[in-house]
Amino acid sequence: MPTDALSLTLAALADPTRRAILSRLALGETSVAELGKPFDITPPAVTKHLKVLQRAGLITQTRQAQYRPCRINPKPLKEVSVWIEAYRRLWEQRLDRLEDYLQKLQEKEAR
Amino acid sequence: MPTDALSLTLAALADPTRRAILSRLALGETSVAELGKPFDITPPAVTKHLKVLQRAGLITQTRQAQYRPCRINPKPLKEVSVWIEAYRRLWEQRLDRLEDYLQKLQEKEAR
Repeated sequence: MPTDALSLTLAALADPTRRAILSRLALGETSVAELGKPFDITPPAVTKHLKVLQRAGLITQTRQAQYRPCRINPKPLKEVSVWIEAYRRLWEQRLDRLEDYLQKLQEKEAR
Repeated sequence: MPTDALSLTLAALADPTRRAILSRLALGETSVAELGKPFDITPPAVTKHLKVLQRAGLITQTRQAQYRPCRINPKPLKEVSVWIEAYRRLWEQRLDRLEDYLQKLQEKEAR
């Protein structure tokens, strides 16, 4: 079981139904029944997915669970973006070093 | 078990050791033994993590597994970025609509 926040977020997003539920919630709050319709899944199955999203901090469940199930919270997704950007920087630095090396090799050839 | 490519990528990234292995590989290819050192895990445990990363298409294992275990492949991460961006757009559109609504409300008050 992942325990750090970023792992929890990534694990919660690693399901097409949960990502679709999240995208639907980004359009506005809706009922649990409404959320289940496009996937033909039961309200208890929707509730299970919502709990995973909630544990990851991606949504916040409100008191009136039947009618206004949850609000989305973009903060954990921001953390995923930050990690991917950091990784991309590492990858670009590596390509830069490779280019430097190739250039030095070409300069050596030219001499 | 997730079956779509994006879910596989997200599930593979939902582990701090696997993310660290990937970041280390972004700096250059290295041995399985070297990859395990910072986490004090055995080569078989590293190999298991590499298999998960490979199944998600995040790395490509080479023939000489002992010395040059794998190359990183940035394509699946690009797909994660694309999804997050699409989601962010949805979220921003929602905020825009809320702003429009508030502005109309204020105009109505002013009249």
